[in-house]
Amino acid sequence: MPDSRATRSDERTGTILRAALELAREVGYAKLSIEAVAARAGVGKHTVYRRWSSRGLLFLDAVLSLDTGGLAHRDTGDVVADVREVMVKAVDLLGRPPWGPLYQDLVGEAQHDPEVAAALNRRFIEPQTADTLARLRSAKEQGQLAPDFDLDLAFDILSGPLYFRLLITQEPLTHDYIDRLIRALFAGMSPRPDNAAANGSR
Amino acid sequence: MPDSRATRSDERTGTILRAALELAREVGYAKLSIEAVAARAGVGKHTVYRRWSSRGLLFLDAVLSLDTGGLAHRDTGDVVADVREVMVKAVDLLGRPPWGPLYQDLVGEAQHDPEVAAALNRRFIEPQTADTLARLRSAKEQGQLAPDFDLDLAFDILSGPLYFRLLITQEPLTHDYIDRLIRALFAGMSPRPDNAAANGSR
Repeated sequence: MPDSRATRSDERTGTILRAALELAREVGYAKLSIEAVAARAGVGKHTVYRRWSSRGLLFLDAVLSLDTGGLAHRDTGDVVADVREVMVKAVDLLGRPPWGPLYQDLVGEAQHDPEVAAALNRRFIEPQTADTLARLRSAKEQGQLAPDFDLDLAFDILSGPLYFRLLITQEPLTHDYIDRLIRALFAGMSPRPDNAAANGSR
Repeated sequence: MPDSRATRSDERTGTILRAALELAREVGYAKLSIEAVAARAGVGKHTVYRRWSSRGLLFLDAVLSLDTGGLAHRDTGDVVADVREVMVKAVDLLGRPPWGPLYQDLVGEAQHDPEVAAALNRRFIEPQTADTLARLRSAKEQGQLAPDFDLDLAFDILSGPLYFRLLITQEPLTHDYIDRLIRALFAGMSPRPDNAAANGSR
């Protein structure tokens, strides 16, 4: 039989996280307060503070409690297709409510709160980086990537432009953007010697 | 002769912006208030509100009033060197106080405040994008870039990984990182046909 005290505590945690998400969507993260979350969840504010030492850490747990639909790479043997699949899922997540705006607020908070920044990396960014790295390492071993490609940069290169669009230019994240990015990142900016030769011979 | 009323107004604006920067560095942006800035500048809070409708827009003006040392591309004829020069200047700016932490707070604020996001793009990001585009367009015309390289992606590709490191992983921004990025972005992730042939023949 489950420990009923632990179950009640888990249920209460779930209620508080759902209340935080509801309120963040209603009033915006800037106006979210622990007091208001506690009132919405029907608990005392000390119940919230016992679990989360700051509004930012509560919000982090709330956002990361949402289903991301899975951002793990498959290995179909075609690295470009497998990378594209995950990037398309990522833009569908980042570019739309509820996840997109909530995640944007979370990253905003991480700029002022080092604890939120550290927890976001440990719980969300690092697992994705490791998964991407594993997929690309296998592709490299199969000769599908440039033999000197710097794998440690891979996640920065693939996701940096997405984050740039999400956080800086705030232009829409589309499947077309992903297709263009993948084409450019795989091909590289320099002329290919074979292309140059082909162009020269025309 | 200069209009002395306009000069006094400019001086007052400068005093307020300096007060905002001093306070942001002392107490952090999260605790910055218009009241405190007004008190530090020795003016009434309505004097501040007459010029800036929000704390975020005041902070934007304050950060953008700092000298960035110039982020325009030279055209020495070597596109890789010219791009590297600007990226190195950018990481020196973004990776160190005072600019780095202040800019990070500004981007954080842009996540919650659409007016700040729009002004940041119009006044800081768009001019840099245009300058980068002009340099790369000239390189493309001279055959130093892949003939099918998607110029509209160039700024996202070059700066996205920097912003990713600054805002997400918060790992140090170094010259070595720039060198590795430039190498990877110019070469591309796919094997080069000539390399593949060379590897195959060994």
